[in-house]
Amino acid sequence: MTVPKFSFPPGRERPLQIHPRYFPDAAWATMRTVRFSDCDPAGIVYTPRFIDMVNGAIEDFFLQRLRVDYHALLVKHQIGLGYKSVDTDFFLPALMGDRLSFTVLVEHIGRTSVIYSLHCVRETTEIMRCRLVQVTTSLNTHVPINIPTPLKDALVAYKESCK
Amino acid sequence: MTVPKFSFPPGRERPLQIHPRYFPDAAWATMRTVRFSDCDPAGIVYTPRFIDMVNGAIEDFFLQRLRVDYHALLVKHQIGLGYKSVDTDFFLPALMGDRLSFTVLVEHIGRTSVIYSLHCVRETTEIMRCRLVQVTTSLNTHVPINIPTPLKDALVAYKESCK
Amino acid sequence: MTVPKFSFPPGRERPLQIHPRYFPDAAWATMRTVRFSDCDPAGIVYTPRFIDMVNGAIEDFFLQRLRVDYHALLVKHQIGLGYKSVDTDFFLPALMGDRLSFTVLVEHIGRTSVIYSLHCVRETTEIMRCRLVQVTTSLNTHVPINIPTPLKDALVAYKESCK
Amino acid sequence: MTVPKFSFPPGRERPLQIHPRYFPDAAWATMRTVRFSDCDPAGIVYTPRFIDMVNGAIEDFFLQRLRVDYHALLVKHQIGLGYKSVDTDFFLPALMGDRLSFTVLVEHIGRTSVIYSLHCVRETTEIMRCRLVQVTTSLNTHVPINIPTPLKDALVAYKESCK
Repeated sequence: MTVPKFSFPPGRERPLQIHPRYFPDAAWATMRTVRFSDCDPAGIVYTPRFIDMVNGAIEDFFLQRLRVDYHALLVKHQIGLGYKSVDTDFFLPALMGDRLSFTVLVEHIGRTSVIYSLHCVRETTEIMRCRLVQVTTSLNTHVPINIPTPLKDALVAYKESCK
Repeated sequence: MTVPKFSFPPGRERPLQIHPRYFPDAAWATMRTVRFSDCDPAGIVYTPRFIDMVNGAIEDFFLQRLRVDYHALLVKHQIGLGYKSVDTDFFLPALMGDRLSFTVLVEHIGRTSVIYSLHCVRETTEIMRCRLVQVTTSLNTHVPINIPTPLKDALVAYKESCK
Repeated sequence: MTVPKFSFPPGRERPLQIHPRYFPDAAWATMRTVRFSDCDPAGIVYTPRFIDMVNGAIEDFFLQRLRVDYHALLVKHQIGLGYKSVDTDFFLPALMGDRLSFTVLVEHIGRTSVIYSLHCVRETTEIMRCRLVQVTTSLNTHVPINIPTPLKDALVAYKESCK
Repeated sequence: MTVPKFSFPPGRERPLQIHPRYFPDAAWATMRTVRFSDCDPAGIVYTPRFIDMVNGAIEDFFLQRLRVDYHALLVKHQIGLGYKSVDTDFFLPALMGDRLSFTVLVEHIGRTSVIYSLHCVRETTEIMRCRLVQVTTSLNTHVPINIPTPLKDALVAYKESCK
């Protein structure tokens, strides 16, 4: 057997920074101050910690905007809300004490997955962008399952409101 | 002024899982067991913790394969090794106790940036893929700077060896 | 040379839980909801993450109550605020979604160190207690230095107010 | 009702650093290099991250020395291995790249709890000491349960070997 030569898939284009004035009026956002513990020896937010903040923003979006109990979904209903893909662009570093806003937009709602676009803004400058593909799974089998109706309805309503 | 309507940039195609037999013979890899502390209440590796493992694999790649002192670059030379973009695909969840290998490939070497392709494999199954664009910056100004020559030479030699 | 046999130093007594009604009236507290990312596969707050919350409470105490810029102390003045000792008692586990308050009390102010007593309360039940000995150090030499006067004055005033 | 005045419980004495030559011959230890991600903007290991390392050392002690499957205890047997108290003394800061050893000693074995003494050593200098009271609990009720016999036997045998 001949093993084919390894090749890299084509890269994607880097998005342009967007000004928050272009966000839909109904877009939901949450604020977060950068803590000492978020930063690395380079004095800026440690990359994985940025993804942790992003996950926290999604958690808050569920609880505060969608009014869906993120924790009960997991514990009571044994439904996982993991990610199939996470694409992140860092435009500028964030420093200790920075006040950051995280705007959550719903790009697409599928049968078992949702695509979010998340924009981290300092004052009026987008410093980070994240595209998340979230999949609802059974925590017992780790197999994708349909998005629960109350969650889907809330997501659809939010997406509509942002048109 | 008319504000243009918000639109999402086109998504990228999801890559196919690759079998480790297709990795170049000279590809460098490091092993890591999934710890209790890597996992979330869903019992699987918490997404940001996966990115933390990826960062650790790059750190080990510098120290063990390139023989470039990652820590001295930061502390002595005040050179940052942050990321401009991080794209991650999760094919399968990882569980506590899993033995994972992280294979590091160099896709492209630019003037101030390097593109890595990182493959996380359990036994012979790729469970996670990450594409990182790393930028060398001055820790004082956070502006991109040329990749230091010893690092560039080591990266070029490794890339050549993987042809 | 005879090597003496290894022996363990005497343990300390476990403190009793305290009811928040016994806290001084002027005691400062901050609230925090337990996140998904704070919890481990056992579904409760991961121990090191509790210490991380405690550190965050001290950071907020500086910024919000003492009006001392924690981040500037580090970055501008190169003064470290690390701990010489951390003693923690866990009375009850904390779960996802729990609303926790962290009350910060100043027990003792020395020349180069401060002793804090930190009480984590859910509703009216103390679930965690932490005693911290914080030392002000030079970040260049890691040697203890006198507590800067503005910080010391603010600590003394707060301690007085809690009498 | 008169509310009694708040008072602080007496502090404990700070232990003296111990030279590793005084550890029992049979004492088990594990090595760990300090990573970039372990360090904070002060350039030293972030305190909660030290407790995370300590937890990892206990995990490895179970897996490698006691030959007790830490992960199966949690997942299969639904037994928690949380801490009732954690007392930590920091003698010297740890820096990026430091090679640290963590020696695990068993101080006391009770019915539902074990007391560990954990010593973190750089070269021959103890830089951190931690005393942990670990309690075996039911993950369903969070109530203490008897230490499972295979674990207790392994702990007793290890403790004996260190005499």
